[in-house]
Order: sequence, then C-alpha cells, then structure tokens
Amino acid sequence: MIVVIKKDSQKEQIDRLIQWLESMQLQVHISQGLLQMILGLVGDTSCVDIDLIRSLDIVEDVKRIQEPYKNASRKFQPDDTVISVGNTMVGGGNLTVIAGPCSVESETQVCEIAHAVKEAGATMLRGGAFKPRTSPYAFQGLGADGIRMLQLAKRETGLPIVSEVMDISQLPLFEDVDVIQVGARNMQNFQLLRELGRTNKPVLLKRGLSSTIEELLMSAEYIMAGGNAQVILCERGIRTFESYTRNTLDLSAVPVIKQLSHLPVIIDPSHATGISHLVRPMSLAAVAAGADGLIIEVHNDPAHALCDGPQSITPAAFREVSRAVQLVFEAVRAGKQE
Amino acid sequence: MIVVIKKDSQKEQIDRLIQWLESMQLQVHISQGLLQMILGLVGDTSCVDIDLIRSLDIVEDVKRIQEPYKNASRKFQPDDTVISVGNTMVGGGNLTVIAGPCSVESETQVCEIAHAVKEAGATMLRGGAFKPRTSPYAFQGLGADGIRMLQLAKRETGLPIVSEVMDISQLPLFEDVDVIQVGARNMQNFQLLRELGRTNKPVLLKRGLSSTIEELLMSAEYIMAGGNAQVILCERGIRTFESYTRNTLDLSAVPVIKQLSHLPVIIDPSHATGISHLVRPMSLAAVAAGADGLIIEVHNDPAHALCDGPQSITPAAFREVSRAVQLVFEAVRAGKQE
Amino acid sequence: MIVVIKKDSQKEQIDRLIQWLESMQLQVHISQGLLQMILGLVGDTSCVDIDLIRSLDIVEDVKRIQEPYKNASRKFQPDDTVISVGNTMVGGGNLTVIAGPCSVESETQVCEIAHAVKEAGATMLRGGAFKPRTSPYAFQGLGADGIRMLQLAKRETGLPIVSEVMDISQLPLFEDVDVIQVGARNMQNFQLLRELGRTNKPVLLKRGLSSTIEELLMSAEYIMAGGNAQVILCERGIRTFESYTRNTLDLSAVPVIKQLSHLPVIIDPSHATGISHLVRPMSLAAVAAGADGLIIEVHNDPAHALCDGPQSITPAAFREVSRAVQLVFEAVRAGKQE
Amino acid sequence: MIVVIKKDSQKEQIDRLIQWLESMQLQVHISQGLLQMILGLVGDTSCVDIDLIRSLDIVEDVKRIQEPYKNASRKFQPDDTVISVGNTMVGGGNLTVIAGPCSVESETQVCEIAHAVKEAGATMLRGGAFKPRTSPYAFQGLGADGIRMLQLAKRETGLPIVSEVMDISQLPLFEDVDVIQVGARNMQNFQLLRELGRTNKPVLLKRGLSSTIEELLMSAEYIMAGGNAQVILCERGIRTFESYTRNTLDLSAVPVIKQLSHLPVIIDPSHATGISHLVRPMSLAAVAAGADGLIIEVHNDPAHALCDGPQSITPAAFREVSRAVQLVFEAVRAGKQE
Repeated sequence: MIVVIKKDSQKEQIDRLIQWLESMQLQVHISQGLLQMILGLVGDTSCVDIDLIRSLDIVEDVKRIQEPYKNASRKFQPDDTVISVGNTMVGGGNLTVIAGPCSVESETQVCEIAHAVKEAGATMLRGGAFKPRTSPYAFQGLGADGIRMLQLAKRETGLPIVSEVMDISQLPLFEDVDVIQVGARNMQNFQLLRELGRTNKPVLLKRGLSSTIEELLMSAEYIMAGGNAQVILCERGIRTFESYTRNTLDLSAVPVIKQLSHLPVIIDPSHATGISHLVRPMSLAAVAAGADGLIIEVHNDPAHALCDGPQSITPAAFREVSRAVQLVFEAVRAGKQE
Repeated sequence: MIVVIKKDSQKEQIDRLIQWLESMQLQVHISQGLLQMILGLVGDTSCVDIDLIRSLDIVEDVKRIQEPYKNASRKFQPDDTVISVGNTMVGGGNLTVIAGPCSVESETQVCEIAHAVKEAGATMLRGGAFKPRTSPYAFQGLGADGIRMLQLAKRETGLPIVSEVMDISQLPLFEDVDVIQVGARNMQNFQLLRELGRTNKPVLLKRGLSSTIEELLMSAEYIMAGGNAQVILCERGIRTFESYTRNTLDLSAVPVIKQLSHLPVIIDPSHATGISHLVRPMSLAAVAAGADGLIIEVHNDPAHALCDGPQSITPAAFREVSRAVQLVFEAVRAGKQE
Repeated sequence: MIVVIKKDSQKEQIDRLIQWLESMQLQVHISQGLLQMILGLVGDTSCVDIDLIRSLDIVEDVKRIQEPYKNASRKFQPDDTVISVGNTMVGGGNLTVIAGPCSVESETQVCEIAHAVKEAGATMLRGGAFKPRTSPYAFQGLGADGIRMLQLAKRETGLPIVSEVMDISQLPLFEDVDVIQVGARNMQNFQLLRELGRTNKPVLLKRGLSSTIEELLMSAEYIMAGGNAQVILCERGIRTFESYTRNTLDLSAVPVIKQLSHLPVIIDPSHATGISHLVRPMSLAAVAAGADGLIIEVHNDPAHALCDGPQSITPAAFREVSRAVQLVFEAVRAGKQE
Repeated sequence: MIVVIKKDSQKEQIDRLIQWLESMQLQVHISQGLLQMILGLVGDTSCVDIDLIRSLDIVEDVKRIQEPYKNASRKFQPDDTVISVGNTMVGGGNLTVIAGPCSVESETQVCEIAHAVKEAGATMLRGGAFKPRTSPYAFQGLGADGIRMLQLAKRETGLPIVSEVMDISQLPLFEDVDVIQVGARNMQNFQLLRELGRTNKPVLLKRGLSSTIEELLMSAEYIMAGGNAQVILCERGIRTFESYTRNTLDLSAVPVIKQLSHLPVIIDPSHATGISHLVRPMSLAAVAAGADGLIIEVHNDPAHALCDGPQSITPAAFREVSRAVQLVFEAVRAGKQE
C-alpha cells in the first residue's frame, strides 16, 4: 500500500501517522519527493481500512498494491481449489455442468428434467424453490415444497442438487441441499455470507449485477473468513448500457479471476443473456475462455415456465449444447498440451 | 400492454392466448397489420408476468405501456404522500434534513453531533449501528449498543432517529427507531422488504447502485403491498464508468420519480460522491432539482471517523450547507410562485 | 411501429396525424383501448423519424417493432455477406485472422512481424499509421510513412493490409490499403462514414466504447446507404464500471449481430482487454461464440512498443494462439454438424 | 508518478529503466520494500507515456499522482479562465445562458426564436446547421444555409452565435460564428481538436457519452496545446444503464471540474435528459451545483421541430426557466457571501 502525503503537512502529524501504521505491524518506507512524500507500507495490508487512511487530513491519496483479500487470493494458495460435491468434482480441470429449471414447479416436472439432463451429461441439478422476483405480484417459488421435490429428484437420479437461499431464516431447509446458491442480488448480503461461512457446505456465489471482480472476491472472503473454503464463483452478466441482452456477460472475468484466485469459476449463460438462442454460443465461449463449468436453465416446456421462460432451453436443445461444449472443452485441452 | 404476435402463428394458438389473457380479466383488442398482429391489453396489467408472455412461441415481443407498480404510482394516488415522523413531516413541500455520523461510535460522539446538527437546522438524526462493509475485516458497527446510543441522543435532543437494518433478525432492535433505513445493497432483499411491509414504521429505501428507477419503485411496491405506505425514497448515486466520484449522483431521478410516484424523494450527497467538498454543491443542486430532503454525513472528527470519513463534513461545515440549502429552497419556491 | 395516443387527445388532431403518416406511404391500423388509442404503422418504417413522432403533443409513446436499418438487416438479405480481400474471404464460414503491430514503427519492424504472423497463420496484416491517442503529448503514428511501410510488408508477404483512417483528408493515402479501419472513437463520425460509402473498399468498422449494437448497425447503414456493402463489424469492448480490464468484451454481441445482420463480425481481444495474457482465452472464446475472425496485436518487442504495449503478444505467443484457435474453430464446426 | 517494480527483477534492468527515466528530466526516488521496489518520479510527468512504462517486463504497475494534462489544470493556472464572446463573458462568476433551436430550419424560425430568447434573458443564440444523426435517413441540417440564417439572427438581435462543426472541411464556414461547438460524438476526433487549437475562436467542447472527466480535460488539452486557450466545457449526460432519461446528467462533474481546472463549465439539460419537462429542474440544479451557464433548446413549435423535438421547450417556458434560474443563481451567491 502506498500513502501519498500532502505537500504542506507538518512533520509532527506525519510522525504520528507513521507510528500508528507501525502499530498495525506494518513496516513503513519513506520516499521523499519534491512535491510529495510517499510512504510505502509493507506487511499484511489486507486488514488495513483504506478509507480510514484516505480520510486523514495529511493524506492526498492511498493506493493499494496488494489485493484486499487473502483466503481467496492465489498468492496465498497457488493451487486450484477442488470442491467435491456428491461423486463429482468442481474446479481443477473438471468440467461441471449444472442444469435444471429456473423454478421447481412440480414433482413430475423436476424429476423429468432431472432424468433428461443427467442423460445428456449434466453433473448436477439446479432448481429454484425460493425465487427473488422484482415484482411482489410475480410467482415467488414453492419454498419448502420445492426443496422437497428437488430431494426427490436427487434420490431418483443421484444428481447432487443446487438451490438458492434468500434469507438466513431459510437455511435450516437446506440441510440436504448439496450446493447452496447465493443470488446476484444477495452477493453483498453480508449477514448471509457470514452465516454461510459457518456451514460446511459448498456455496455457489453469483456476481452482483454491478459488482466488480474485486467485490466478488471480497464476498467470497466473507464466507472463507468464517472457515468455509468451498466457494464456487459464478459470473452471470453485469449491467451495462447495452439493452439488447438482459445483461452483458463478462467472459474476461474468467481468466482474470483464475489469475487472481484459486477458486473455481462457472458461467450462467441463461441469466446473463436472458435469450434462449444465446445459451449455446455463450456456453461454448465460456468453456473456451477457461471456465470450470456452466449452469444452464433447462425446462421441458419453456413456453410455460412459471418464471424466466425466455432464457430456458429444452432438454433436447440441452443435449446438443452439452455435446458441443464437450467438443470445445477437449479442443481447448488439446490446445494447451501442444 | 402490447403483445406483438409472430408472422406465421396459427389461428388456434392465437385464440388460446387470447382466451388465457381474458381469463386474467383483461380486455384484448386485436389490430391486424401486414407483417404482424398486435394485441392491445386493457385492464390491470400490473399483475401480469411480462416474461411469461414473452416466452410464448407465438409472441415476438411484449411492451408495457403502463407501469408494473400500482400503490407507488401517481396515477393511482395523485396527491403527494406526506409522512409524519416525530414532530416533523416528510414530503408535500416540506424540506427534510437528516444529518449525523456514518457510524455510531460512542455516546459522547453521537450526542455531541446530535446537538450540533439540531442547532444547525437538521430535522432528524442519522447514525449507523449495523454497517454493511465490503471487507469482512473492516469495522462492522456497534450493533445493539449503537441503537441504544442513538436513542439516548434522541432523548437529549428530541430529534427522530434514522438507522439502517441489514437483516430481518435485527428488526426487534428497531422498535424505538423512528425511520428504518434499507441500504442500497439490500434494495432487492425481498424478504426484508416484505417484512417491513408488515410494520407500521416509515422506511427510508435507498436506490441500489445498479437499480433502475422502475426497480426502485417496484421495491417500494413490495413494502406497500404489505400494507405499509410510509416509504421515503433515496437516490444515493449509481454505478457508472466514471471513477472520479465514488458513484454518479443521478439527480434527474428526482423530477422523474416525482412525476411517476407520489412518494417523497431525498438525496444522499455524501455516499453518492464519497468526497466531502462535493456535499455542499450537490446538496444545493438536489434541492434545486426538487428533492424533498437530504441525508448528510456529519462527523465531529471526520479524519478519525471509523468508516466513510472522506465523505463526512464537520458540524461547522454542515451549518453553512444548511443555511445555503435554505436559501436555494426559498429561491426555488419563489420561482414557482411567479 | 406502434404509436400510443394520449387519453384526452382530440379527434381532429388524431386525424391529422393519421393523414400525415399515410402521406409517408404507411398503412395505419387503429386499435381503440379503454385507456389509449394505439396506431399500428405498417410499411417501410426505417425512414421514419421516431423522435419527431414522439415529440407530438398527442403522442404518449412510440415503439419500434422493426429495426431502423435496412441494408444491414438480415431480414432484407438472409444470406451471409462474404467479402473478398486479396486472396482471402471474410464471412460465410471462413476464419479471418488479422495480426500485426499496434503502430507501424519501422520497415524492419513491420516486415519482420508480417513474415512471422503469416507463417503462424494470419490471413491479413494490421498496423497503425495514424494513431488516435488520448493525450496530445503521446506518439501519434508515422502517418504517410507508416502506410508506405505497410505496403512494403504487403509486397514482401502477400498479406492484405488493414489500417485505420482518422479523417476524410487522409483517405487519398489509403488507395493501396486493402481494408480501411474506422476506430471506435470515429464510429459516429458520420461525415467519414458517408465518404467511405462512396469508396469501393472493405471497411472494418469498430464498435464505439459506449455504442449499442443497434447504433453499430446504424453506422454500417451509413456506409451501405452510400453504395458500399463491404462492411466488417468489429466488437472491441464496451465501457462499463468494471475497471480490471480496460473495457468489457461483449461477446454476446457476436450471436446477437449474426441474427440481426448478414455482415461478418470479428473480435479484437487485444484492445478489449488491454492485457496480453487475456488475448489467448478471449480469442478462443470469440471463435467459440461464432465470430468470423480476430484482430490481434502482435509485436516483436512488446515491452518497447511505442503504443499499447501491454496488450501485445509476441510472434511466438501468437503462433500458439493461432493453433489453439484453429482447434476450437474445428470443434465448433464439428459440434454444428452432429 | 509511482512505478512499482516486480519482485524478482534484475538490478541491471532496473538500472537501465532508471537511466531512461532520468533522461526524460525526471528525478527518480527509490523506495525498497520487502515485496517490491517503488520508484517515485518527480518532474513534469504530463508528457510521460504511462502505457509504455506499464508494458515493461519488470514493471508491476504504474500509478499517476499528477494529472496528465497541464494547460487545462488549475495547478498551472489557479485563476478562472474568463472568455469574452461578443459583449458577454463566460466563466469567472458570470452566468451564461445559451438558447435556441436544435436545428436551424428557416430564417423566420431562427429569427423569431432569437428575439424571444434574447428578451427572456439569453446571452447567446445556439442553432445547429450540421446535425450528427444516428440514422442516415434522418434530417441532417441545412448546412451552409443554416449558418447564414444564424448570422442573420445575430445581426437582428446582437446575440453571439454558437453552432456545431462536424468535420475539419466545414471550418471555413464558421468564420463568423462566435463559438464553435464540438459535439459529444466528436470529443475524441483528435484531428478536429488539433485544428481548432490553431484557430483563435472560443470552442464549446461537449463531453462524450462515455468519456471520463479526465478524458474531457485531455481533449481540452489538445485544443490548448495548439495555442487556443478559449475552451468552454459542457456536460451533457453520460451513458448508463438507466434508460428512463436519454442519458444520465452527471452534475457532480461541475464541482469536480471546477476543482481540477480553471475552464468554465456549462450544462446542457436538454440533451442530457431528452425530456422537456426535466429542463427546468435540471437547469436550476446545474446553477445550484456551480455551473457557469446553460445551453438550452428552445423551439417555437417543439411538436414540429425537425429534430430532437421532445427535449425542446417553448419560448414562454424558457422565459420562466430563465427567471427561476436567475433566482437560484442569486441565492447561491448569497449563500457564499454569508
């Protein structure tokens, strides 16, 4: 961390600042320029409150050189995190394909889709029981019943299940859910993240619509700081001026995160684009960019899905996407080995 | 609502769609063009799930003409909502000035600031007891102790108090808080909004960093749909590419919301800009744009505030801002009467 | 196009509007609802000025159903445009790989790179002679000398050359340039677009940093309206709040544009990300998303390139990217044929 | 400027870098930390190519401490620039009100409006002769005829005239135009800026839709570097995700620019919002935020304006806005003097 001191600061004030910084176990290196004095801080600056320092009278600017996260950083753990879910592995060169309906609607629906996506190559089943909806008048999910139906589908197919939690109070219902999803709107629901840090379940953490990559990693850090290192990151589109697609899928985030962090990263092409015919090309692109997996909405009757229908694809379409994804995944691997 | 039907759709399918729409108490007007058939839906479309219709095979596009909210809409309530808090009124031509520290730090601090801002013209006291912080390692607020200190300051000064809730589980602590604040990161925490709809306390609802004006009004609708009509909206900056200010204060949102809705709108210049010397000009601009009030961070020692110091101003600076705001407020009123 | 008439409009005014619309060879279909009257316009609405209609007193809203472009639309030309440049083809299932230095620096530099990228599989050579730089104090390109050096490299290698024009006055120098590039900052330099519409040279049109897909197609329409149908579109990143990468590469734009238009689309991963280690993953992703090609910065000495060094890769790195791209391209094709 | 050196860099390489930096008349201060070496550069860094340094193998990061512009910086000229146009002054505490039609349509139209806005308090007349339009099929302005009509209106009223240039080739027509406007889409048309730097006419430079404040100042620097110091900056809305208003007016830019630069800043509420009923509140807000003036579209028949009608106001509405603006301007001044 670099602290730039204002030109006319008094020596006494600077000395007090340096003492205070040193009291946080930081070494302070002073570089005196003509226009400014610069303090270089060496040590564990991930716990330093950058805003606090910036607010001081004598400070012109503060710039971080190291990331403000630690557990999530590849500098502190060079090897890929690999998370085992049921009999499948996420991260470390494995390709994870999570598929299923946006909302769980009935036992028949979810079981039918579960069988279909398993047969087509999915490694996990997704399904929403609690649905965050912009309108209070829209369908909000089946709740506890939905979770029960997912568990039935799991027993029938053996697929581990992924479902979204919206509030701490719902957590007891997720005991038999394999991966707990935190939605984009809750990425900075810090109470929830903290609570998930106390569980020992894998968490699928979706990037907020207007969250930076650093903020996503800081939210992962919230979970990891509590002792739960099983975090799967998910890019699902960011909000930009472009309105043709629902959001703008930020695929560059994949290689960027892979460099900054050891955590697995998957892509949600369904929510990112909101348009079913974009699911295939963006799935292929995600895998080509190095993503560890995909989470895709599949519905046996997209035209009548109770929510988010326009972005769902049919089991038949999913089977084709899944095959094409496999071919690209192998091509990317072959390209690496050459 | 207008539904555009695809060119080669079969009559049978169209008839089924029309029947289904009519079953929702909507009148359907058909307009047959050369390239498309257009269905005009008349009735209460605020409960219609636009995504569901868009997902149908035979539908090319759906466009809303009416807003998807109702309780929050000025069409359904032409007169301004006026909310009484303690002995002050919010909305309806009153100027509300909420001031206080970002975080409550001690009894002395909050009481000193409370006296100072009251004397300078503030009509309510703000103070954070639960603080949403990006980093798990940053100061998270004093919690229940902070609420208690705020109540002490209220008893001493008579100022009603405003404080932020972060999770449903904290609500019991807010019994003696006059206005419950929902932070930008929680604007779409729908469980929390729903719960606040069951209370009878005024809610100060902050716009999310990447939320549209319509989404803000939909979140207000969540609270109002539960029976609580006392919602104060707050614009506090949106996230854009410009990085000089922390966020971009969207002041046009004030006249836009005043036209769409009857709810009061206030501005938070401190969080919007993140820079203390911008508080004054943006406060004046907010009032000139027609805002019903301001929420301003004031700290007796900004350089040592435990959080968000750079955007706080001193009580002395606040006194000047408050006076200048009053002059502009009167000038705007004079301009209207001419 | 749909025109929504305000509730209390007078019959006389509506009649006048309808007459005026019919005078533009449009058929007007009237749909009378309870709250609004809706006019459905049928005919060639691409020439209708939507802002003009919206401005009328009696009009509540206007919504386009058809695109405002025509020559660029796939509805008017279902088959892919294929553009022949030298002995290579752009579009229609061909993979175009354009490579070369950001700036032309010397004969030796550009010829060395030209040989290297040709040998590694590039189909065209790029090189900037006129450089748009944010700062008036930064290197602005070699100008006419740069063009001459590119032509030398073309004679030596046979590779067609691509270079950027910044102003109409420079056009005479581009007589022997095979593809004229319009940079992102000039995407809406309408005088320049109009002038390029009068040439018979392929134009590589880059999307502006904050331009929508529709605006990109409208700029293509400017060139095509003048009679020049050889437009290659290029996505090179849009400006968003995320600051880790220089811009956010909007890969979804590829399948979106392929559906809306018949024009070829290529991707510039170098400028989009501004980071050399992202060139490889984003190149693979672009091809997987269905792009017709890539334009990649290659420099024999990236660390000393006179501009945009951080995003350039070496010829050796380019050779590897090129091979990996080929493998993904074949995998995508194989996936389609199954 | 601070250069952070990578951990394992060789002493030889570092020495060479330091020598090179010193050869640019910079003093280099070395600060050796445990993890990194930091070089602090002192001297005139506005001419240093930051990208070039960042591209070096041994450099981890470069951070600017000083702005990359010089002529436009308040550090180099503490006093406000005041520009005299005809018999009025722009900047330095004067309130400039520029009004007139979006497009010049006829002698009668422009003269009528000129008389009306003069009588209502405008200090300059605006009018477009060359119009940048997204669609090649929309009205593009009267060109030279439009300029001639503006000059007639100037002779009749004595108001100085402001009009937009779109290309260098049009400059000869602007000899008798008092202020040359550069539109948002041309803010980074560097050839045009350079050419304007060679004239001795005031330039009204509009901020690009997706340009940062720093980029706006860099474009001003292009003009000033050529010797023309008469630059008036204009904020006219930036592109964000919010689609209710055409753009998002960034009023915080006013106090930010006033701090960074000595150049006058005016606001265009008409183009920023695109909605006529927002012109009044945003004009008041602009003046309250400290803007040096306004540029407002006024049309005697907004409903039939040939372009941008929805954002124009009538002369009668303008008269009221002008009066209300004056009241707020005086209130802001009174607030300062207390």
